Amino acid sequence: MTGPRGRRPGHRDTRGEIVAAARHLFATRSYAQVSMRAVAREANVDPALVHHYFESKQELFLMAMADVSVRPSELLGKVAEVPSSMLGPTVIMAFTSVWDEPSHRDSFAAIMTNLTPESGLDRNVREFLISGIAGMVEPMCAGDAPRLRATLAITQILGMAMARYVLRMEPLASMPREGLARLLGPTIQHYLIGRLDPEDLVDA
Amino acid sequence: MTGPRGRRPGHRDTRGEIVAAARHLFATRSYAQVSMRAVAREANVDPALVHHYFESKQELFLMAMADVSVRPSELLGKVAEVPSSMLGPTVIMAFTSVWDEPSHRDSFAAIMTNLTPESGLDRNVREFLISGIAGMVEPMCAGDAPRLRATLAITQILGMAMARYVLRMEPLASMPREGLARLLGPTIQHYLIGRLDPEDLVDA
Repeated sequence: MTGPRGRRPGHRDTRGEIVAAARHLFATRSYAQVSMRAVAREANVDPALVHHYFESKQELFLMAMADVSVRPSELLGKVAEVPSSMLGPTVIMAFTSVWDEPSHRDSFAAIMTNLTPESGLDRNVREFLISGIAGMVEPMCAGDAPRLRATLAITQILGMAMARYVLRMEPLASMPREGLARLLGPTIQHYLIGRLDPEDLVDA
Repeated sequence: MTGPRGRRPGHRDTRGEIVAAARHLFATRSYAQVSMRAVAREANVDPALVHHYFESKQELFLMAMADVSVRPSELLGKVAEVPSSMLGPTVIMAFTSVWDEPSHRDSFAAIMTNLTPESGLDRNVREFLISGIAGMVEPMCAGDAPRLRATLAITQILGMAMARYVLRMEPLASMPREGLARLLGPTIQHYLIGRLDPEDLVDA
């Protein structure tokens, strides 16, 4: 998600401060309540600077959320190195290693709670998840129906994250990551490389 | 979720119209953007009537969402009648039979996208899910760690619903319910009555 905009010389700190301010506001208010002007105020910069770096509120939102998915991508790059019997738990460990950090936890909650049709984010986030998470996990899938398998894995990853970070349901919210990996890893493993009913592979 | 307020004689239709109007507004706008006055306008009633039936916007929201979980409860009451080998798929069929209806689909999306800290709904919805869904599934669980098992099942149910109803990710969004039950049912089954690592049962 970091494009040429992130590399304009001389502006990197300002841009980073704007993104951090936006992440804080989106995590604590609804999407509709956050304006470009409010982000400028929070970052203590001129509103024109916010518009200089970001064309729209939507672009700013997606940028503020980006590293929530970018960093699992790096971690999942190492998944190829683990034996396939550890694939599922490794995926859970990769995502929780990022999302367990307080600032990312808030970003994730902000994504999930800003998906109203009026925000237009549901379409963006869907694309974002598919190109991000699905793009990462599809190469790990068995040869058949990689998109179906990736989407099934996403349901378990999303549901885990909803319960742990947004709803904070116990005992999952306070459980060590290793416990989550043991409990949910086999499910991810099954979806990615396990045996699915041939009838469902036709659906994909 | 239907208390004495639902039974005041002579006002049942008005109350129902207010709830339907609220459900429509909460499904299409963010929580912060919906006022008691806007609900009154949508329902074409005097604002004082809305306040007569509902003490707060929060109460109105939870009431508008209530039958999304009440009806699975009725359906899950029949789960005891199915052989335990069909438990997981039956749970998926029960929830999707309700949530697949367009009006409930919108209500579910509204719940999930109104969990910002400022709305105060994350706490309410957590209680709501635990007392609702967990309360339903706990009796089905094997004797050990029923709360942990119920919470694990909720992660898979929530993630499925996020992907199907909110993000509308294909191929899960358009798949017949029976396909979902075949694909996700074994996971629910495992969480509810399968063998969990004894180390994790200690966590619960």
